[in-house]
Amino acid sequence: MAQQPSMYTDVSDIGEFGLIAHLRDTLGPDVPDEVHTGIGDDAAVIRQSDGRVQAYTTDSLIEGVHFDRTFMPMEHLGFKLMSVNVSDLAAMNVSPEYALITIGLPKNITVEHLRTLYEGIKKACDAYGITVVGGDTTSAHALTLSVTAWGSAEAEAVVQRSGAQVGDAICVTGDLGASYAGLKILADERKRLEDEGDDFEPALDAFPYVIRRHLAPPAQEASVRRWRNAGFKPHALIDISDGLSSEIHHICEAGDVGARLFAPTLPIHPETRSVADHFGDDVDVYAFFGGEDYELLFTADESDLDALDETTYTIIGEVTDASKGVLVEQGDGTAIPMQPGGFDHFDENDDGAA
Amino acid sequence: MAQQPSMYTDVSDIGEFGLIAHLRDTLGPDVPDEVHTGIGDDAAVIRQSDGRVQAYTTDSLIEGVHFDRTFMPMEHLGFKLMSVNVSDLAAMNVSPEYALITIGLPKNITVEHLRTLYEGIKKACDAYGITVVGGDTTSAHALTLSVTAWGSAEAEAVVQRSGAQVGDAICVTGDLGASYAGLKILADERKRLEDEGDDFEPALDAFPYVIRRHLAPPAQEASVRRWRNAGFKPHALIDISDGLSSEIHHICEAGDVGARLFAPTLPIHPETRSVADHFGDDVDVYAFFGGEDYELLFTADESDLDALDETTYTIIGEVTDASKGVLVEQGDGTAIPMQPGGFDHFDENDDGAA
Repeated sequence: MAQQPSMYTDVSDIGEFGLIAHLRDTLGPDVPDEVHTGIGDDAAVIRQSDGRVQAYTTDSLIEGVHFDRTFMPMEHLGFKLMSVNVSDLAAMNVSPEYALITIGLPKNITVEHLRTLYEGIKKACDAYGITVVGGDTTSAHALTLSVTAWGSAEAEAVVQRSGAQVGDAICVTGDLGASYAGLKILADERKRLEDEGDDFEPALDAFPYVIRRHLAPPAQEASVRRWRNAGFKPHALIDISDGLSSEIHHICEAGDVGARLFAPTLPIHPETRSVADHFGDDVDVYAFFGGEDYELLFTADESDLDALDETTYTIIGEVTDASKGVLVEQGDGTAIPMQPGGFDHFDENDDGAA
Repeated sequence: MAQQPSMYTDVSDIGEFGLIAHLRDTLGPDVPDEVHTGIGDDAAVIRQSDGRVQAYTTDSLIEGVHFDRTFMPMEHLGFKLMSVNVSDLAAMNVSPEYALITIGLPKNITVEHLRTLYEGIKKACDAYGITVVGGDTTSAHALTLSVTAWGSAEAEAVVQRSGAQVGDAICVTGDLGASYAGLKILADERKRLEDEGDDFEPALDAFPYVIRRHLAPPAQEASVRRWRNAGFKPHALIDISDGLSSEIHHICEAGDVGARLFAPTLPIHPETRSVADHFGDDVDVYAFFGGEDYELLFTADESDLDALDETTYTIIGEVTDASKGVLVEQGDGTAIPMQPGGFDHFDENDDGAA
């Protein structure tokens, strides 16, 4: 048969954000007054009758898409599953309270795998203060894990990605690029396993920090709690799941501002630098585009930062007028425009709407 | 290598309910006072600070597990996705208000498929009064759809599966076995398609009711609203997702009661009978074990039923002492014990905890 021109559009032609826009358009922009934040931020926020709000998020980890079971211990997977959801609530300045967990089981999984997975979930629930109240189990083609998590807050406490003010300091918690460095090491191990077969010996001991950051990243729920206790509230807030570059663009678009980042100030762990050196990579690429760091990116009035312990964040730039775009200033004082870049959602990351 | 005895336990050895018990044990039986209903009912129920409660459920539909895209129009799939979740809330006597939708996309899906899926979701949201506030999009091995839905209610309005009283009438909404009859027709079409190849001509027109009941079942949200308006409240309530037999056993176990069902009273649509006749099957098997009817099974004081329009429910039995077990009385007055039976969750159905 002759090839006909296709009537159909590939999903890759419109991308994840195009899909979310379609969904929002179809379901209608008319939402009830109770909806404080709908489709498009890290979490949805609903007003309650008592004046408080509840923030809701959902995120999935699918075998072969988000993780490789060969190098992902079940306990770490359970912990990470909760972290990726808690991170989305932290990105609204909200702590989690409850969760529903859906587990889709392939044929090649055992009860012992699942018990260990549950142990990791339990550890995370204890760390983050979450009560699991239900879920769903079903069969699936690959191990498919999905969580919905929510928590309540004062309405005034919620921080969206849109609130950046010109002149704000741009800050991050923790360090950047470590998760990607861990992924590089694990991918290299996988390749060695395939190449060397029976002669393969794992060599993971040299980089424990970055591997752990990839396999079982902590979410910044503790940062949110510290901020609450210190009376600190950022102007704009987002979590770094898709890489600093992608997230700073989200903040600039949502707030109609620009940003000037100072490359030499990016907080990078020594082990992350070692991994980049090992592979002959530029470590700034890890920090800007790596993704899955689950740190928080926020903007704030610089004087408000005095309320915080200065070891808990790093100033990496300043918010500018929208007309300036997003610039990265190098050590020599030159500044170059930055594209969103980051990793394609449909290959590496999820973290879609809400 | 010689085969070693396995250190591992197959999931099928402990089953879905065994897994849920493991999860509950691992995460600890100590839940906060705010948890009205935790793991194990159709939905989780959380007390709010204003004295009301919120009920939460999550349910998934996975291609190749819960549906066959060959015979599942995308619009119906979107509608069914919402119905299976709304049904779990209706099973707590709660109407839905909000939902998060997660969509896992295989490579062979197009934007046009998704638009049509969204249309079905939109229709269901309009029918059930749901606002979609967010979700997640990711890639997946097969089309993977997951929803979390929730709604609020007066605390006293919530009905659990555990409240049946000896002497209660056992009732169902709608009719039973139609979804399974529809599945039989579709499976037969699929077989004919494989056998006949290019000569295959679809023959779906003869059974529109049962096919629709399988592809786009309505949830009984309207029943719940009618009950609320009539001031009616059942003693025990569950939705019939896994078949009448399985669900009546859940009600009896949770309430520590028995049941006597009257087989001749089971409400069965004429078209469902025609399909059973067509295949030479016993239609009662469809009604007892078919599953996916998404009707409500409830028990109530018979005098309370006077508040309801009698065309909206059918009395199919009575609640007895636990020592009597679950019996089915035939037309000739003989009664036989009934096993839970129904379909294996890991092959046909999901609808796990919560």
